[in-house]
Amino acid sequence: MTGAYRKIVEVLEGKTVSPPPVWLMRQAGRYLPEYRETRAAAGSFLDLCYTPDLAVEVTLQPIRRYGFDAAILFSDILVIPDALHRNVRFVQGEGPQMDPIDVAGIQGLKSEGVIAHLAPVMETVRRLRRELPEETTLLGFCGAPWTVATYMIAGHGTPDQAPARLFAYRHPEAFEKLLSLLAEISAEYLVAQIDAGADAVQIFDSWAGVLGEKEFEAYAVKPVARMIEIIRRQRPQAKIIAFAKGAGLNLKSYRQKTGADAIGLDWSVPLSFAVELQKDGPVQGNLDPMRVVAGGKSLEDGIDAILDKLGNGPLIFNLGHGITPEANPDHVRQLIERVRGANA
Amino acid sequence: MTGAYRKIVEVLEGKTVSPPPVWLMRQAGRYLPEYRETRAAAGSFLDLCYTPDLAVEVTLQPIRRYGFDAAILFSDILVIPDALHRNVRFVQGEGPQMDPIDVAGIQGLKSEGVIAHLAPVMETVRRLRRELPEETTLLGFCGAPWTVATYMIAGHGTPDQAPARLFAYRHPEAFEKLLSLLAEISAEYLVAQIDAGADAVQIFDSWAGVLGEKEFEAYAVKPVARMIEIIRRQRPQAKIIAFAKGAGLNLKSYRQKTGADAIGLDWSVPLSFAVELQKDGPVQGNLDPMRVVAGGKSLEDGIDAILDKLGNGPLIFNLGHGITPEANPDHVRQLIERVRGANA
Repeated sequence: MTGAYRKIVEVLEGKTVSPPPVWLMRQAGRYLPEYRETRAAAGSFLDLCYTPDLAVEVTLQPIRRYGFDAAILFSDILVIPDALHRNVRFVQGEGPQMDPIDVAGIQGLKSEGVIAHLAPVMETVRRLRRELPEETTLLGFCGAPWTVATYMIAGHGTPDQAPARLFAYRHPEAFEKLLSLLAEISAEYLVAQIDAGADAVQIFDSWAGVLGEKEFEAYAVKPVARMIEIIRRQRPQAKIIAFAKGAGLNLKSYRQKTGADAIGLDWSVPLSFAVELQKDGPVQGNLDPMRVVAGGKSLEDGIDAILDKLGNGPLIFNLGHGITPEANPDHVRQLIERVRGANA
Repeated sequence: MTGAYRKIVEVLEGKTVSPPPVWLMRQAGRYLPEYRETRAAAGSFLDLCYTPDLAVEVTLQPIRRYGFDAAILFSDILVIPDALHRNVRFVQGEGPQMDPIDVAGIQGLKSEGVIAHLAPVMETVRRLRRELPEETTLLGFCGAPWTVATYMIAGHGTPDQAPARLFAYRHPEAFEKLLSLLAEISAEYLVAQIDAGADAVQIFDSWAGVLGEKEFEAYAVKPVARMIEIIRRQRPQAKIIAFAKGAGLNLKSYRQKTGADAIGLDWSVPLSFAVELQKDGPVQGNLDPMRVVAGGKSLEDGIDAILDKLGNGPLIFNLGHGITPEANPDHVRQLIERVRGANA
């Protein structure tokens, strides 16, 4: 909109930027003392997400400290079920919980009012775009329909989302209805984030890895493709990153089938395969977050391997999953310096 | 040894058996009322593993009920850390626990006495071979060094084995020492099972999927290759199945690099990729266990897709992960009948 040069937008347009721009999934998080302070002063976790003053503050904290090339809106993928009145709550030490949904519950879901419920998120995005440095890309995001659905079905996190897999086998029509509804709502939500000032958006399919071949097509590819179709129909220039964690071989055709500009890679994706994927377009990833906890040589070696294999093509340097609370903030600084020192 | 015709041994020799032989991972388990009864009468879970009368009984239960083509020794992958005096205990509803190991603990590990500690397991194998029908393949098993190490480091199960990944980054030499020791002990353990009467053995690398590319080579491939080398040096005819769950693309070279006869496939492995893997040798898998819970059309469709794609080559029909307690025993019967009805 402003014509500012934003490196991550350049990469999303297919250009190679050297050294590659860098941000970290969950960069506004518990590894930062300033985050823990703001979090402690807020009420519930959802209060933090829905209070623009606080959400803006925690989003900006890692930008102030490190000057990442992107800020990602502070929010959660479960604001969608929250907006759908699923009684979402974040219980300390237990992870997110909500009322599990059944077939009748799916029939009764209404998409009206969802975007209005999420108005504070869009206000956060608007303020962020004003407060961020010109050169910083602002990323919006949401969960992919499959991943959001896994929580809605189980009512909480599980090791391999068996409840949602089972539900989909037992009630395929109701399950597809749920995914369709989530795809439409989520697409509108991302359009609203783009309109509020997000330069690009990321779709998180954190549980794509537990699906069989046909189910990956039906539940991971199809709803994300539908989302991107809806977004592009309204905002043809929208820049979209799709991150299907654990998708492995299914990543081969994921970009082409979904229409995403860039694909996110988790740390288990072999770099030799990542090189193949990069021939078709930009990739984002994929350092093991444990290397940021460990620091030292394992951090350096992990960074160097990614830069060596992927640094000569369109790359957004990132972790392969969210940074963990145990990560040392000094290691994050070392990471950025090493990435930025590359080819400089 | 007896010259009996055992279908699974035939498949492991590279032959196509039609219809394919079938067994299920964790087939002796909580979904069976007779298992729950025996389990309730035993003391601890480890007592069940170490009491040949009981372990033989639960191993035979699914064979009596269903006539599977293989019986798998009832035991647990954590008998190895138990034999290494890591204070292993199975706490109801909490999963396995043990004393987490550190660098000094690894230096102090002694392999002496491990096989003697596991003598009751070999007694179970001996009795099983006597009591099983001639045509039933008897499978022994153990955990792969990486998977066993993840529990030894964390002291319990975790969602993505972050503690072991971190430990390996921080203390690569101590970690490789642990894997070497586990590889040697586990190989001797499998040789002892083979000598006691196991027709074939399976190595379970349940956590292979959380490793990056280099770590997969160093921690999943290398120790399993070493195990198989040790086993084959002593028992050149040993038949070995290696199951690296979640290994995805890394499976491409896994058979060739480890020397396994057959490779196990989890339910996320696309059948189109499985077809490629089967060109190099036998495969085992890979029905989603949730289809056995769901039953009906989703069970039939899942079975048919596997038979259609893999039934014309060397295949051991199995699940892509262990059967769950919620599975309906009637669905298991339907599964076997459908697999056996194929090409009949």
